[in-house]
Amino acid sequence: MKVVLASASPRRSMILEQAGIAFEVCVSEVEEKITQSAPELVVEELSAQKAEDVAKKYTGDELIIGADTVVAARGRILGKPKDETDAAFMLRELSGAVHQVYTGVTLIRSGRKVTFHAVTDVSVCRLTEKEIRDYVNSGEPMDKAGAYAIQGLFGKYITGINGEYNNVVGLPIAAIYAKCRELGYEIM
Amino acid sequence: MKVVLASASPRRSMILEQAGIAFEVCVSEVEEKITQSAPELVVEELSAQKAEDVAKKYTGDELIIGADTVVAARGRILGKPKDETDAAFMLRELSGAVHQVYTGVTLIRSGRKVTFHAVTDVSVCRLTEKEIRDYVNSGEPMDKAGAYAIQGLFGKYITGINGEYNNVVGLPIAAIYAKCRELGYEIM
Repeated sequence: MKVVLASASPRRSMILEQAGIAFEVCVSEVEEKITQSAPELVVEELSAQKAEDVAKKYTGDELIIGADTVVAARGRILGKPKDETDAAFMLRELSGAVHQVYTGVTLIRSGRKVTFHAVTDVSVCRLTEKEIRDYVNSGEPMDKAGAYAIQGLFGKYITGINGEYNNVVGLPIAAIYAKCRELGYEIM
Repeated sequence: MKVVLASASPRRSMILEQAGIAFEVCVSEVEEKITQSAPELVVEELSAQKAEDVAKKYTGDELIIGADTVVAARGRILGKPKDETDAAFMLRELSGAVHQVYTGVTLIRSGRKVTFHAVTDVSVCRLTEKEIRDYVNSGEPMDKAGAYAIQGLFGKYITGINGEYNNVVGLPIAAIYAKCRELGYEIM
């Protein structure tokens, strides 16, 4: 079965590659419309918009995978920081606390659409103001939702996670694999 | 402060690099002696043997990091599989269950030695005999403790973890960072 990833994220592509799944990328050009406020509903709705847009370009037998990821602290979504002050503010929110990463996934095949989400808890150690300043100065936070990347310099501050690691990177591959198995889709 | 990693593992080096820590590698040549049986004590003892051996080659002001990682199911250590039959046996042990990955860490500096361990729970989905056979045939299990690599093809079967991700890869960098902070060692 042909698999199409409706996302430009190189990290999502990497996760599919590591899992040994053959796929092609087709990026959605849809203008994202958010009507929900709860993080898990926002990511589900955005993943559906991406997958639906890309599905129009295919004949129907392919499996289209749409995904959207957000970082949320106390139920509130943290987007990409506007500037360094905003990045430092977000990092103070995450310091010494547990936050959530949600990824919504929509699978479309032969007109059948299935949407679900995965959530992972992420525990961050208490950060000093110097650590926050140094991390902001590294430049890494600026294009990242929630102002950090789990694979980068911030890794040493993440004391633990509860849930799927790849979900935090951007694609809950085990949840997708399990759903495909349930639906009878052979993606390997 | 100069940091010395007493391990030949490229994955451990990668974790230190990603964390932005400057270090050099000096591989221990000690013959490992296991006197313990509980996984957490085995990894602590082996990490100490590696760090102590490497510490002899330095003047004392460096921070020597020794580490040893094992995979354990129901308290029993799973080593590297002897052959494909053994790999399939181990994968059946992990299928549909939660197992543990332990890393022992020893830090030595100026004659002061600190040893501790980190543990991460890893949940694996129920594997079919075909999935086990395909994974064994991929060759990936053969040189891996517990017969799998979390970063590789096996990722799609790992439904979640509880604890530090980097501990499963081989070096609990957040636990090491926290311990260094506690000891007053500036490793950044």
